[in-house]
Amino acid sequence: MKLVSYRHNKTFGSYRVGAVVEEKIIDVNEAYKRYLVFQGDNQLDSADYLVPAQWEDFIALGQASIERGQVALSFVLEHQISDVCFERSDVSIGAPVKSGAKIICVGKNYRDHVAEMSKGGMESDLPTYPVLFSKFDNAIISAAEPIQKSPHTNQLDYEGELALVIGQKASNVPKEEALQYIAGYTIGNDVSARDLQKRTPQWLQGKTLDKSTPVGPWMVTSDEIPDPSSLNIQTFINGEKRQDSNTQHLIFTIPYLIEFISSLITLQPGDIILTGTPNGVGFAMDPPQFLHDGDEVRIEIEKVGVLQNRVSEQ
Amino acid sequence: MKLVSYRHNKTFGSYRVGAVVEEKIIDVNEAYKRYLVFQGDNQLDSADYLVPAQWEDFIALGQASIERGQVALSFVLEHQISDVCFERSDVSIGAPVKSGAKIICVGKNYRDHVAEMSKGGMESDLPTYPVLFSKFDNAIISAAEPIQKSPHTNQLDYEGELALVIGQKASNVPKEEALQYIAGYTIGNDVSARDLQKRTPQWLQGKTLDKSTPVGPWMVTSDEIPDPSSLNIQTFINGEKRQDSNTQHLIFTIPYLIEFISSLITLQPGDIILTGTPNGVGFAMDPPQFLHDGDEVRIEIEKVGVLQNRVSEQ
Repeated sequence: MKLVSYRHNKTFGSYRVGAVVEEKIIDVNEAYKRYLVFQGDNQLDSADYLVPAQWEDFIALGQASIERGQVALSFVLEHQISDVCFERSDVSIGAPVKSGAKIICVGKNYRDHVAEMSKGGMESDLPTYPVLFSKFDNAIISAAEPIQKSPHTNQLDYEGELALVIGQKASNVPKEEALQYIAGYTIGNDVSARDLQKRTPQWLQGKTLDKSTPVGPWMVTSDEIPDPSSLNIQTFINGEKRQDSNTQHLIFTIPYLIEFISSLITLQPGDIILTGTPNGVGFAMDPPQFLHDGDEVRIEIEKVGVLQNRVSEQ
Repeated sequence: MKLVSYRHNKTFGSYRVGAVVEEKIIDVNEAYKRYLVFQGDNQLDSADYLVPAQWEDFIALGQASIERGQVALSFVLEHQISDVCFERSDVSIGAPVKSGAKIICVGKNYRDHVAEMSKGGMESDLPTYPVLFSKFDNAIISAAEPIQKSPHTNQLDYEGELALVIGQKASNVPKEEALQYIAGYTIGNDVSARDLQKRTPQWLQGKTLDKSTPVGPWMVTSDEIPDPSSLNIQTFINGEKRQDSNTQHLIFTIPYLIEFISSLITLQPGDIILTGTPNGVGFAMDPPQFLHDGDEVRIEIEKVGVLQNRVSEQ
């Protein structure tokens, strides 16, 4: 399933979990209620616990809510139950990131990117341990929102990345079991203000500018990507290909990242890990090329989708 | 007022906002209800909106809930209404940090600490801009909990710091108005695993170990500390004085930090800023002295209080 957090444009209600099927959004909680009725089960309140309508509650149930959601989705598609479906153009879609989620980023995790950032390709720059840093949720925007260019930076840059959504509480998880802890995959653009990132020893202030970081367009549930270790990843600026790599080039693999991070930090459902960006960022070009008002950043990851956002100075 | 998030040990209910008065905890929401009744106002439901029982909701109202809480507290003290009061020994007190809060830390913010960490006191290490980094809420513990020493570190160290709790949404706040955005002050121990902090270029992994970072014991509302720029701050390890400074030595003042941070990151009520630690950390001693199972760390900040935690390997 491709899951989103959406709300209908006319109702201005709260955001709810939807499944994307072609150009439709299907409300997963409502779909499950229709399924229960069909099963002769009229205790519809239970649907709100079994397949919660809100993203944070849904993700918090881990694989259980996803499996029930899949059952509900198959049911409404098979029986063509249209009144739980909305046109994509009639809804607003949020980022698949819960409020207050931990947003953990991995730096220096593709060899060619380490090389381009050191401007000399010194082997000694290759990390011995994963380099972890963070963003706060003030930075997160959806696929539908513009990347806000702060007036405090003149060096705004893109970083296309595969992102994971954690599906269950994870502490001291061995890498052999790590993939079970992933609810799904999405795309992150780890937008970075290079001038702010590099003016102090810690990158945070260049990484978490308000409304700088798109995540989306949806979360593909992990059953659809049993192996995330060989996905093509490409980034285009105004149609020009800038990044072109594959997750097989990650220095620290996804299972190892979960083992490493969860040995230090207990992860919760809905937490996000951005796994690092390959070479081809604007900062490393000669001369460097940064993002400007109106630029369009398009990131494509195989089996996940396309995340496209325009840059705006407003 | 000294505000805490507490719950009664026998009820196992949710945490609620309490005011500390000597050895008592007074439930602020219940106190306000008694005040409303006394005023002849029986619409008690309004108390839940005006003086919310939960920490995040209470802080989110900013100065308004604090002022009403003060009225309620004065009322129950004056009228000796004892059934909204609990013995401190009968309650559990949490950290004054909401779930999912941004926890923004400032590094290198006392000149003498910059000098001791560079081992040579090179002037060039003094920051031109505030050095910002972060912790996640997995790290936060209360004054009543032990500092958990992870088996992954052999260099656990303390950092006594004045901490701010943001009281209202803050974006692009000029420093002249910055103090208005502070709900109150507390004490943070920015516990740092030096080996993990320094093994990669980014400090995060050494700063946000599970249950490593005490904050508390309460939040002193900002009306009681109109000027935070000259508070004595001391840290003791097993009774031995290690840190002894004053917030007048902050390189970047509290108003400037709020101006700086809020120009990049929109702050929300309940977000926390740890303002940096003075010299005297264990890492800088000769030979370095780190924290071990059973050690007691006591931080005293003038007008704020005492934060004392034992280190535990469990």
